[in-house]
Amino acid sequence: MGLKALDYETLNENVKKVQYAVRGELYLRASELQKEGKKIIFTNVGNPHALGQKPLTFPRQVVALCQAPFLLDDPNVGLMFPADAIARAKHYLSLTSGGLGAYSDSRGIPGVRKEVAEFIERRDGCDADLELYYPWEGDGILVPVPQYPLYSATISLLGGSLVPYYLEETANWGLDVNNLRESVAQARSKGLTVRAMVIINPGNPTGQCLSEANLREIINFCYQENLVLLGDEVYQQNIYQDERPFISARKVLMDMGPPISKELQLISFHTVSKGYWGECGQRGGYFEMTNLPPQTVDEIYKIASIALSPNVPAQIFMGLMVNPLKPGDISYEQFIRESQGILQSLRRRARIMTDGFNSCKNVVCNFTEGAMYSFPQIRLPLKAIEAAKKAGKVPDVFYCLKLLEATGISTVPGSGFGQKEGVFHLRTTILPAEEDMPAIMSSFKKFNDKFMDEYEDKWNQSRM
Amino acid sequence: MGLKALDYETLNENVKKVQYAVRGELYLRASELQKEGKKIIFTNVGNPHALGQKPLTFPRQVVALCQAPFLLDDPNVGLMFPADAIARAKHYLSLTSGGLGAYSDSRGIPGVRKEVAEFIERRDGCDADLELYYPWEGDGILVPVPQYPLYSATISLLGGSLVPYYLEETANWGLDVNNLRESVAQARSKGLTVRAMVIINPGNPTGQCLSEANLREIINFCYQENLVLLGDEVYQQNIYQDERPFISARKVLMDMGPPISKELQLISFHTVSKGYWGECGQRGGYFEMTNLPPQTVDEIYKIASIALSPNVPAQIFMGLMVNPLKPGDISYEQFIRESQGILQSLRRRARIMTDGFNSCKNVVCNFTEGAMYSFPQIRLPLKAIEAAKKAGKVPDVFYCLKLLEATGISTVPGSGFGQKEGVFHLRTTILPAEEDMPAIMSSFKKFNDKFMDEYEDKWNQSRM
Repeated sequence: MGLKALDYETLNENVKKVQYAVRGELYLRASELQKEGKKIIFTNVGNPHALGQKPLTFPRQVVALCQAPFLLDDPNVGLMFPADAIARAKHYLSLTSGGLGAYSDSRGIPGVRKEVAEFIERRDGCDADLELYYPWEGDGILVPVPQYPLYSATISLLGGSLVPYYLEETANWGLDVNNLRESVAQARSKGLTVRAMVIINPGNPTGQCLSEANLREIINFCYQENLVLLGDEVYQQNIYQDERPFISARKVLMDMGPPISKELQLISFHTVSKGYWGECGQRGGYFEMTNLPPQTVDEIYKIASIALSPNVPAQIFMGLMVNPLKPGDISYEQFIRESQGILQSLRRRARIMTDGFNSCKNVVCNFTEGAMYSFPQIRLPLKAIEAAKKAGKVPDVFYCLKLLEATGISTVPGSGFGQKEGVFHLRTTILPAEEDMPAIMSSFKKFNDKFMDEYEDKWNQSRM
Repeated sequence: MGLKALDYETLNENVKKVQYAVRGELYLRASELQKEGKKIIFTNVGNPHALGQKPLTFPRQVVALCQAPFLLDDPNVGLMFPADAIARAKHYLSLTSGGLGAYSDSRGIPGVRKEVAEFIERRDGCDADLELYYPWEGDGILVPVPQYPLYSATISLLGGSLVPYYLEETANWGLDVNNLRESVAQARSKGLTVRAMVIINPGNPTGQCLSEANLREIINFCYQENLVLLGDEVYQQNIYQDERPFISARKVLMDMGPPISKELQLISFHTVSKGYWGECGQRGGYFEMTNLPPQTVDEIYKIASIALSPNVPAQIFMGLMVNPLKPGDISYEQFIRESQGILQSLRRRARIMTDGFNSCKNVVCNFTEGAMYSFPQIRLPLKAIEAAKKAGKVPDVFYCLKLLEATGISTVPGSGFGQKEGVFHLRTTILPAEEDMPAIMSSFKKFNDKFMDEYEDKWNQSRM
């Protein structure tokens, strides 16, 4: 018999072309080593609970009660759950029609969507209207480089074209609008229709926070070039400095006033997987569409309906995130203690990690202003690059594999995120437990400095 | 300014072409009427909890404990949770790395996947190996008509071609392999590459159960024609007669022996949304791949990795479904009482509904052997068809809208599922509460018989 429909040779070429480094060769090798009994420090994915972060108590209490609503009728419920968690569980159950086991509207539970809208209104100081699901489109898409490979992989899968724009490492991963113009001109000269631009703010893997002035430039650029702006703002709670607080693209757009505030098409994303929540396994999030025509919104609703319903428990987490406890609530003090504890520790860990990397030979690293990652540049000596080629590896993959084997630290090579020719990085999360951090950084330094010593005699000073 | 990237005119044509009747005009009109205060009986979606079915107690206890693992350390936990629920929660937590808030492997939690494999082995009496995620491909796909519009919508969205094969209403919605041959020949003559065939067993919307002999014919046909067989077996627990119990395509395939059992590519699907679980809002399920080459499985894993992790709480539900309580467990009696209670009531409701429809003028209906739906044929008089045309409606949409306005019963017109030219149906679920069923059927009969009387004088006896 000939080839079958699901033989590798018959698969869609777009599927084969997809690259996804976050779960690529390094991750697979780390999993193998773990099976062999080696202790692995997984810093390849922003997965806080897997690295020991405790979930926030109050939301878990609420969702547990929603999952087991018969507990609300148990005379002992007050012994195990505070009154505000009980009240909140009743509130969310009253918003559903049939509890967590019933399909919700494909756009999400109306009452939770209302809470999301109110959150956006409070955050941005202007009215909000929103939908709760997640689609995607093809064609040319402007994506920052370095970027999170979800973007490159999805564009590749759908047969679109990634149009890269480079972030400036020497300017703390800032975004230069002249680079954008150049990228678009180049893409158009190749016959591409550039339709959208992605920003990741705070940045993944770069960790920078965009300033209000920078956001204004970006918005003007998208308006002039007739691009949809896609704002990946999932790290909006993860801020580790005070000079550049998070500011949403939507707020900047609204502050700019008409005509631009009434015309620029903006889609912005948020999630319960990040922030001080880190509820990655719950799969909850929303996106908000600004200035999309109602007919398009209807089409998106129709497409979302094919999957029938977003995961309902995750929508409860969304509600709890956007409508948190208030001062005076029974569980408020504990909630604040837990969430502040997480954020403050992340801030300290960002500092330990940046300082650690900058103390290493041939390593330079911008401070992690936000998000969950550190993205140090590794200035590989020529001799190391040659050794990598000989081993059939991309140079940063070669370095990261050696790091993994020597220390158990599982990182993602920078080439998975894109970088300028001849420049090498790696990405780690800042998530290992704070008390383990000094040992991890010292283990890294020991490996790195030895590696550099070994390969250094041919180090070419001319590379940045 | 010209058109923007997300203006309706610019959207991908495949998006606009998608049709999805289950949440179409009827559903939207029903939602409007509900907002206006009318009592609506939503029988358009198989959403049991929304219609009053209580969730099973034990799985909800287990998932609540997994969501709030600190309860396990509470000295009062034994007052509110039985010991087996506590033990099972500890078991599932031990299978995760970081609890419900951590990303799992993109294929799912290894320990839960093992439970799924063991379930399939017990069910089919042969070894199983499996993965836990959900992809899809284009090209020509054989799909039964009537069919669940998830298939037509997804194929349309991805630019594939639906190749219909007709189920035989007069043979209790059986599948005639000669129809399959004809459909494939016709599709090939149009230049399509037919790559896969979908079966829905038990049937949606038709409710029939496929016999072992019929499954063997289908498998032989797919083998001869080199098609992947996609087995939508999500209703495998929902069986309402004893002559044709559910038998999985995989079991039939394995029983056929080599070479076919080693070569036919089969993907089969299961879920916690259906059965006596009805946990639609949790979004849990798995699919199992048989005879797919490892390279293809790797590609599927890579694509699944883009979404990082399936919803973890839903994986716990999956584990609980495939690895249920056993005789002697503390909660076993209650679990059996609840699940048998649901199934037996559904069996009675299937009978009430079929008999009700068959007592109506110009309505004929096969018995619901399985799944959750009744799909009566409505023999519309010519005068009604003309009135529908005049109103700019498809005739069955016209009928269903009038039914909705008169009675509040929200159904899905048969045209959303596909049907032979000039033949009309509607789909209802058998899920309204058993005690409401007689009143609903009598309200339906009153509407229908009056409708038929009104339009009957031109009724054309020649239509089937």
